[in-house]
Amino acid sequence: MELARIGATPKGGVARLALTDLDREARDWLIAAGRAAGMAVRVDQIGNIFLRRAGRDATLPPVVTGSHIDTQPTGGKFDGNYGVLAGLEIVRTLNDRNIVTEAPLEVAAWTNEEGSRFVPVMMGSGVFCGAFGIEHAYDARDTSGRSVRDELARIGYLGAEVPGSHRVGCYFEAHIEQGPVLEDAAKTIGVVSGTLGLRWYDCTVRGLESHAGTTPMASRRDALAVATRIMQEVVALAERHAPHGRGTVGYVNVFPNSRNVIPGEVRFSMDLRNATAALLDQMDVELRAFIDDERRRSGLAIDVEAVAHYPPCPFDADCIATVERMAAKLGYSHMRAISGAGHDAIYVARVAPAAMIFVPCKGGISHNEIEDAEPSHLEAGANVLLHCMLEKAGVAGSSATPSAG
Amino acid sequence: MELARIGATPKGGVARLALTDLDREARDWLIAAGRAAGMAVRVDQIGNIFLRRAGRDATLPPVVTGSHIDTQPTGGKFDGNYGVLAGLEIVRTLNDRNIVTEAPLEVAAWTNEEGSRFVPVMMGSGVFCGAFGIEHAYDARDTSGRSVRDELARIGYLGAEVPGSHRVGCYFEAHIEQGPVLEDAAKTIGVVSGTLGLRWYDCTVRGLESHAGTTPMASRRDALAVATRIMQEVVALAERHAPHGRGTVGYVNVFPNSRNVIPGEVRFSMDLRNATAALLDQMDVELRAFIDDERRRSGLAIDVEAVAHYPPCPFDADCIATVERMAAKLGYSHMRAISGAGHDAIYVARVAPAAMIFVPCKGGISHNEIEDAEPSHLEAGANVLLHCMLEKAGVAGSSATPSAG
Repeated sequence: MELARIGATPKGGVARLALTDLDREARDWLIAAGRAAGMAVRVDQIGNIFLRRAGRDATLPPVVTGSHIDTQPTGGKFDGNYGVLAGLEIVRTLNDRNIVTEAPLEVAAWTNEEGSRFVPVMMGSGVFCGAFGIEHAYDARDTSGRSVRDELARIGYLGAEVPGSHRVGCYFEAHIEQGPVLEDAAKTIGVVSGTLGLRWYDCTVRGLESHAGTTPMASRRDALAVATRIMQEVVALAERHAPHGRGTVGYVNVFPNSRNVIPGEVRFSMDLRNATAALLDQMDVELRAFIDDERRRSGLAIDVEAVAHYPPCPFDADCIATVERMAAKLGYSHMRAISGAGHDAIYVARVAPAAMIFVPCKGGISHNEIEDAEPSHLEAGANVLLHCMLEKAGVAGSSATPSAG
Repeated sequence: MELARIGATPKGGVARLALTDLDREARDWLIAAGRAAGMAVRVDQIGNIFLRRAGRDATLPPVVTGSHIDTQPTGGKFDGNYGVLAGLEIVRTLNDRNIVTEAPLEVAAWTNEEGSRFVPVMMGSGVFCGAFGIEHAYDARDTSGRSVRDELARIGYLGAEVPGSHRVGCYFEAHIEQGPVLEDAAKTIGVVSGTLGLRWYDCTVRGLESHAGTTPMASRRDALAVATRIMQEVVALAERHAPHGRGTVGYVNVFPNSRNVIPGEVRFSMDLRNATAALLDQMDVELRAFIDDERRRSGLAIDVEAVAHYPPCPFDADCIATVERMAAKLGYSHMRAISGAGHDAIYVARVAPAAMIFVPCKGGISHNEIEDAEPSHLEAGANVLLHCMLEKAGVAGSSATPSAG
């Protein structure tokens, strides 16, 4: 609630875009809080912040948690911030109990996860894990022409550490679900097994614009009448590939978009997702077959352009099992879940064993100022995170064997 | 082709919007041509021009033909202009042959049929026939704020005659079809029996915008998935009510219209047409029943607002029969046709027996600079018009009985 005051909106949300003065203020607040908890601070060349609590054995790679503290323009208090603050709370708890871990613990705040001001999204974790180069990220500009490099320097977060050089033993990220599944199932903890793969397409149907009154039905080349059949299939296809299939048409542009003119051209987006590469590929095959049939049936030109493809990202089996075991041990209701959205953990999973812990959010609503979550759920998620980190880092002087690294 | 030079576009079309300097130039050209053919000129208070060729009996109401000489912003040479020039050509032909009719003949050029610069469309014939008041028309403004009254005065066509006071014995209008039916059927003359009735609606489907990745199919309230089912039904409904049923969704607006957000709201237009009031009403009933079912099935809010309703306009049976008989007598291939578009004849039919003569246009294309028509078809249409007018006006000294009035 204290962090949420920085960039607070009248409707109860937060507007704190990456690399703004408000982002600097939040970063400064986080670092001060980390220092007050006895943590050491490192900032890398893309502005990622790492707060380290020393372990008994400084040669072990750290067990890392974290998320992001930038928000959407009309974002909520919990998206990202929860994961960072849960990490901070764990350190404070260990301090209070005088518990020392074998491996060091770290709390990461990744730069520009949201991508609202600068693309690509998940920028800090993406550079950290080599998904794209730092120069590409540096050259990204906001709508007023300011670059990431200049804004990092301006707010004082252009660090010295080379992003890829930072070791990670393993990684856990706690996050609100941003969907309705946990709430609908009345479960406190989502044991996230991985993220959905995604295929994005742009589809264009070209017919012939003509007069809505003078053109008989049989003479029409109505681009929208064909496009709506494909839009229906995008949804039907996902429903056939339950439970994790998703099919969405989010964007539609009709030309000339006039009440009494039969549409001559319709452009629309198609978004397919599923949990395994095999299922996602099968959806791709079925969608293309449907469109081929539709092209033959209608005689209209239909172009399909693949614009993005991210394969599913399964998290580390051992990390997933740890989350599940700790949720059970602590007596929280839990279920396996899958993430449909992007998270820093997806990139970190490329360089270290990783998993995520979901907690419910009210109505499944996120990226919205009314985003909300139950304190008891947030506490449960932080407790699961604590025990996962202790399990992996090992407790100095206990019989548990450190397993991190 | 001479008239088409006024406002000619590089692509071979005409851009001559109502009450512009180009419209004045075209009106001046037409009046000069009428005077050269010995015709008297009257202009009424809404700028309608009537060119009169005297008959033997000045007490008989005139047999009138005509159309309009304003065009769309990217219009063609033939829409409207053909009907006015066919009337002028008929007078020249009668002059050449020294034929005098019993009743007078008139050629009307109605003001602002297209409605591109000022609404309502079919303004001159609408005021003439009392569809709406002259003050309503006078107050119409273009996008720069200029009014019809001021522009009529500026170009010198604010006449003195009260529009409703002008007598019309009967009315024939020759026009390009602006659709593909005659060309597809390889017929030269369309005997127009009337115009389609029309019902326009705005439909709004309200769901819940949510994340395309994190929201499972069963949890969605996807406004577009419901809207596309209704859009499909608009087309299917019209196909069930062949041959004259028409169903068009021309306009679609999706909110927030973002690739990875499930649409929360979709607004779209629905345009239904048919040849009889009974069929059009039946289509209305079926559409509303489908939407009621869809509302129950989906649980989403669906609003339907009726925004326009014009009942079908059947033309005068005797005038239709005259067109059909003259086409047959002259040996032209012909068929019954129905007009799906608005024409001045629809308003004139409210105050006098009326019918229309269609000729094919290339590819059915109109309201486009590439609009085109075969000279032989244009000649055939003018010949049918000539014989219809002679039939109704009667030829002085012949055995034919004048039937106009």
